[in-house]
Amino acid sequence: MQDRVIKIGVAGLGRLGIMHAKNIAYKIKNVELTAICDSNNKNLLKYKQQLNIEYGYASFPEMLENKELDAIAIITPSAFHCDQIELSLEAGFHVFCEKPLGVNLEDSTKAKKAVFDHPDKVFMLGFMRRFDPSYKYAKKKVDDGEIGQPILFRSYSVDPISSIDSVLSYIPHSAGQFVDMAVHDIDLARWFLKSEPKSIYAIGGCFAYPEFGEYGDGDNVSALMQFENNAMAFFLAGRTAPHGYNVETEIIGTKSTLRIGSVPQKNLVEIIDQNGVRKECSQSFHERFEDAFKNEMQEFVDCILENRKPEVNVEDGVQSSKIAELATKSFKTNSLIKL
Amino acid sequence: MQDRVIKIGVAGLGRLGIMHAKNIAYKIKNVELTAICDSNNKNLLKYKQQLNIEYGYASFPEMLENKELDAIAIITPSAFHCDQIELSLEAGFHVFCEKPLGVNLEDSTKAKKAVFDHPDKVFMLGFMRRFDPSYKYAKKKVDDGEIGQPILFRSYSVDPISSIDSVLSYIPHSAGQFVDMAVHDIDLARWFLKSEPKSIYAIGGCFAYPEFGEYGDGDNVSALMQFENNAMAFFLAGRTAPHGYNVETEIIGTKSTLRIGSVPQKNLVEIIDQNGVRKECSQSFHERFEDAFKNEMQEFVDCILENRKPEVNVEDGVQSSKIAELATKSFKTNSLIKL
Amino acid sequence: MQDRVIKIGVAGLGRLGIMHAKNIAYKIKNVELTAICDSNNKNLLKYKQQLNIEYGYASFPEMLENKELDAIAIITPSAFHCDQIELSLEAGFHVFCEKPLGVNLEDSTKAKKAVFDHPDKVFMLGFMRRFDPSYKYAKKKVDDGEIGQPILFRSYSVDPISSIDSVLSYIPHSAGQFVDMAVHDIDLARWFLKSEPKSIYAIGGCFAYPEFGEYGDGDNVSALMQFENNAMAFFLAGRTAPHGYNVETEIIGTKSTLRIGSVPQKNLVEIIDQNGVRKECSQSFHERFEDAFKNEMQEFVDCILENRKPEVNVEDGVQSSKIAELATKSFKTNSLIKL
Amino acid sequence: MQDRVIKIGVAGLGRLGIMHAKNIAYKIKNVELTAICDSNNKNLLKYKQQLNIEYGYASFPEMLENKELDAIAIITPSAFHCDQIELSLEAGFHVFCEKPLGVNLEDSTKAKKAVFDHPDKVFMLGFMRRFDPSYKYAKKKVDDGEIGQPILFRSYSVDPISSIDSVLSYIPHSAGQFVDMAVHDIDLARWFLKSEPKSIYAIGGCFAYPEFGEYGDGDNVSALMQFENNAMAFFLAGRTAPHGYNVETEIIGTKSTLRIGSVPQKNLVEIIDQNGVRKECSQSFHERFEDAFKNEMQEFVDCILENRKPEVNVEDGVQSSKIAELATKSFKTNSLIKL
Repeated sequence: MQDRVIKIGVAGLGRLGIMHAKNIAYKIKNVELTAICDSNNKNLLKYKQQLNIEYGYASFPEMLENKELDAIAIITPSAFHCDQIELSLEAGFHVFCEKPLGVNLEDSTKAKKAVFDHPDKVFMLGFMRRFDPSYKYAKKKVDDGEIGQPILFRSYSVDPISSIDSVLSYIPHSAGQFVDMAVHDIDLARWFLKSEPKSIYAIGGCFAYPEFGEYGDGDNVSALMQFENNAMAFFLAGRTAPHGYNVETEIIGTKSTLRIGSVPQKNLVEIIDQNGVRKECSQSFHERFEDAFKNEMQEFVDCILENRKPEVNVEDGVQSSKIAELATKSFKTNSLIKL
Repeated sequence: MQDRVIKIGVAGLGRLGIMHAKNIAYKIKNVELTAICDSNNKNLLKYKQQLNIEYGYASFPEMLENKELDAIAIITPSAFHCDQIELSLEAGFHVFCEKPLGVNLEDSTKAKKAVFDHPDKVFMLGFMRRFDPSYKYAKKKVDDGEIGQPILFRSYSVDPISSIDSVLSYIPHSAGQFVDMAVHDIDLARWFLKSEPKSIYAIGGCFAYPEFGEYGDGDNVSALMQFENNAMAFFLAGRTAPHGYNVETEIIGTKSTLRIGSVPQKNLVEIIDQNGVRKECSQSFHERFEDAFKNEMQEFVDCILENRKPEVNVEDGVQSSKIAELATKSFKTNSLIKL
Repeated sequence: MQDRVIKIGVAGLGRLGIMHAKNIAYKIKNVELTAICDSNNKNLLKYKQQLNIEYGYASFPEMLENKELDAIAIITPSAFHCDQIELSLEAGFHVFCEKPLGVNLEDSTKAKKAVFDHPDKVFMLGFMRRFDPSYKYAKKKVDDGEIGQPILFRSYSVDPISSIDSVLSYIPHSAGQFVDMAVHDIDLARWFLKSEPKSIYAIGGCFAYPEFGEYGDGDNVSALMQFENNAMAFFLAGRTAPHGYNVETEIIGTKSTLRIGSVPQKNLVEIIDQNGVRKECSQSFHERFEDAFKNEMQEFVDCILENRKPEVNVEDGVQSSKIAELATKSFKTNSLIKL
Repeated sequence: MQDRVIKIGVAGLGRLGIMHAKNIAYKIKNVELTAICDSNNKNLLKYKQQLNIEYGYASFPEMLENKELDAIAIITPSAFHCDQIELSLEAGFHVFCEKPLGVNLEDSTKAKKAVFDHPDKVFMLGFMRRFDPSYKYAKKKVDDGEIGQPILFRSYSVDPISSIDSVLSYIPHSAGQFVDMAVHDIDLARWFLKSEPKSIYAIGGCFAYPEFGEYGDGDNVSALMQFENNAMAFFLAGRTAPHGYNVETEIIGTKSTLRIGSVPQKNLVEIIDQNGVRKECSQSFHERFEDAFKNEMQEFVDCILENRKPEVNVEDGVQSSKIAELATKSFKTNSLIKL
């Protein structure tokens, strides 16, 4: 078994796609980056050469004709995800797809059906936080009962202010902070709490950038949810963190509380100067979740090799997207939503 | 002016009353603990002797006849507060009253009227957190614009699990977690945000102690509010903190974020042992707010001496209580309340 | 007993003297600031009026003639300490004296004799760190055996760079960093380790201010000592801390390690901004040891009232000064000193 | 160039050797684990199969005859290092060798000569801490002048008490704590300070395990050194850390201070429970320096591919070992050593 190598074709060479491609090429075992696909021909040629890849495709369907491949990794714009999942599965490939599953419920239901119709194929959605060593460590403690009964799950996803320009230019294509940012936290809440929300109330505003308001969104939004097991969950999603990439989670239980990343420190260096005693912070999801991205792709490969299914499945994608959409609706209508 | 000494009579010798009495007797300048009043005669005699106090009264009205006194400090059960405020003001005394102002809106409106009818008297409500050095330091930074525009105010008040027995026995007399615990956080939110809530959604549950449920309360509850300036506020109030007295506050702004007490550390000692690297925590409000209690009483005395009014006034009491009651209502009816 | 009030005369109205005077006047119980003494007449009158003090003296011997007084607090320049201790004791007063005991061994031996000759009087030396709540907490843990056998005691005393100007102007009068700064840490080492050094090696240099070198001192110096019980001790004393008043201590034991003040945080506020996640620091010994200064003076008063001797005695002063002088000698001669 | 793959033979399959072998096999790019060598035949066969390696050798000279190999990684017992370095270089291979270079000065001088005689070969010594992201980050700050002039370098290497049994059984073969443990810190001191020691004083003792004393060693030892640029350095090496693998370093400068690993936290999870607020710690060098071990081997491979020399060279090995030996001598003779 150790000898078998999974051949993967990566679709989409944006910033995230390139990172996945490099991880597959260099950082993951029992795998080969055999093909890449991107509509930008210049990018395609550049990375084909740089990463020493055998095949390069400008068209997604063309890549699916390459039967040397075992699996497809879909890192394309969200609007393409569900179609490409369906096509890839029907063409006989295992599929890794970046989050979110789809941009609306109809879309993701279609993808879900496709996954169910191909039970022999591995399908995995890129909720990489589940593969972060700190989140995994916390999850094990929660599952082992170390925190007792979960009372409150609190999770923030706030992008660094330093990346505001690219965020602002993306607003017209954004599905809103809950879908774009909080969907990760929502997946984590479901994962840790093993329950689904029964009520949702969301609010928000434009505290620094009125541009978001023009599209009915806020630059910072929050939601309070109660889950079926009565656990409470509070979410904050935003775009204006002054200190870096602020992803933090707290799980308060009856026996103990866990906090993950409440100081999103870059490394183990502490600086003592005229500003006081301080830790510098991670500046991007690349930096914060470098290991998580590698670990999730390794898990995808290992699932194929070991003929098993990943823990994070298509239903997680459908459900998290649905909850994020309901939070968006609550925020836009300023109303309480009960499920 | 330095020579003048304010003579105070303290009503109520419960745990908190004794602490205030000792502060007045030993820790505050320009003040004398001249009288105490408690219906428990044994307690009265014990502390009269121990603290070397001139007058001891079993009856509150009797104490008000002592015209040597300048001021009355009311540390009696909450249900007595408003009546005693009215009586004291009418008898010509300055008044310090522990929070909450009253147990219902009607009650506190009456107290508010009494305060307004005696504009020459100093009235102060015991929102001691405003006098904690850390909260004051944070407040100054917020007022100086250092955090920019406030986005989210988050505040927890969770009692230590170690005091659960006395809490359980008090349930029948409790007005619920929002009124008993979160009222401090609500006052802080109003203080920091300089705004009032416009929507409230509250949830909660019994995660460890079903006893609270019998009275329509939870052992942990939370609320999400949006304020008129759009700032968001999240509150958690509970009774099951495993590590100590967990009062912490976070104020996220567009320029920076402040956290007060997120590690509610007992002192500057860090312990490194088989449990890791750790700080032990404050175990009670006495311990955490020792300085705040002294500072607030000193401020009360200084206001009398300097003929000025304290920043925290009767309106703060009325408003915080009202908001806490609305949160309770939202929780009990599982509905969104708009103001 | 509660009624008795100790009447104290404070000699020396420098920055530290004024702080002690104010503590005695306002913050300590069972005590009265009855007299002050300072050669600067303007200062004397100003504080006599401001603190509402009955007697003011320009001459120390004159103050000793006031038999209303119970005790003398000596906060004068170090060179006067030993003579004034002797005079005060002979005049029948209890004595509190700021550290150091004396400026040389001969001097402090004389003071020691005077203390021994007046066993009915309370004598206390101002090693205030022993009265800091964090140090006391750590000391109890060590005495209770919680850290096991002490292995290494490490202690830093580094003044903030912000006060370098006054430090530079004081160089000609300074006995060097070990005597001026590290003497506190040396006292702590003896207190925690219950042992005396048997070997001393000290080094140092002028890393930013060559001015110290002109007087044979460094702006930062350090020493390694082994104690008779084999415990190791490392000391750093300096004048160039960029972040504030850096007093920190670590005690490594076979079972656990304690660190006191390794983050010399100002308060419980954590700031999150473009500098990262940070705590601001205490900026002076006044700020860091505010409680300790009050607690030590209260202990002095309580010792007089309760007719007992303080834990920190004249021998501690003699011994700490002696060790500091030997460290200075080791540094100046670049040699190992064995005791 | 990207296509070339360096073929490495690993000698020594102890715990560290296996880790290096697995890193080469799975975690490093442009490299192949082509051969392994170990005198334990059972181990050899097990890992040859498990890691799918082409060649397995019971004899080191036999492996050197395999001319398919490009490089040899020497992870054998310290006493073999220098001979094997010489043999490997003479046989025409690039060489990576675990620290320490040799067990005595004569030995390491021989290795140094061999390296100098083969200037076309890459030789690298396994001071992996230099490749730890946190240490690298700190080093850059120091080199960029951010801390100003270095004043004090302080570094601890204390093994977890949990591994005491294997440490005790190794005592007879140990060269002492300075050579075994502190040599890493000494290398770091030289790296950060860019200077060499001019005086050394070392002390220590058996605080928990008298067994070390039978061989003239201590279970915890420390040394104070002054470097030629006057910077001070304090080292602690020991075997009894209750909380885990305690490697921490502090570099105090005239402008700022850096601390690396002063909380040797396992991950980003903070636990809040009856023990307070705490971080769990790394338990072994494997865990703490997982990335550093990968990074150093990648650097070795990249140096070969890019025909350049690593920053850490044979002289670093000679010098660090020499200083560690002098510290050992100072400790054993209780004397000050001047260089």
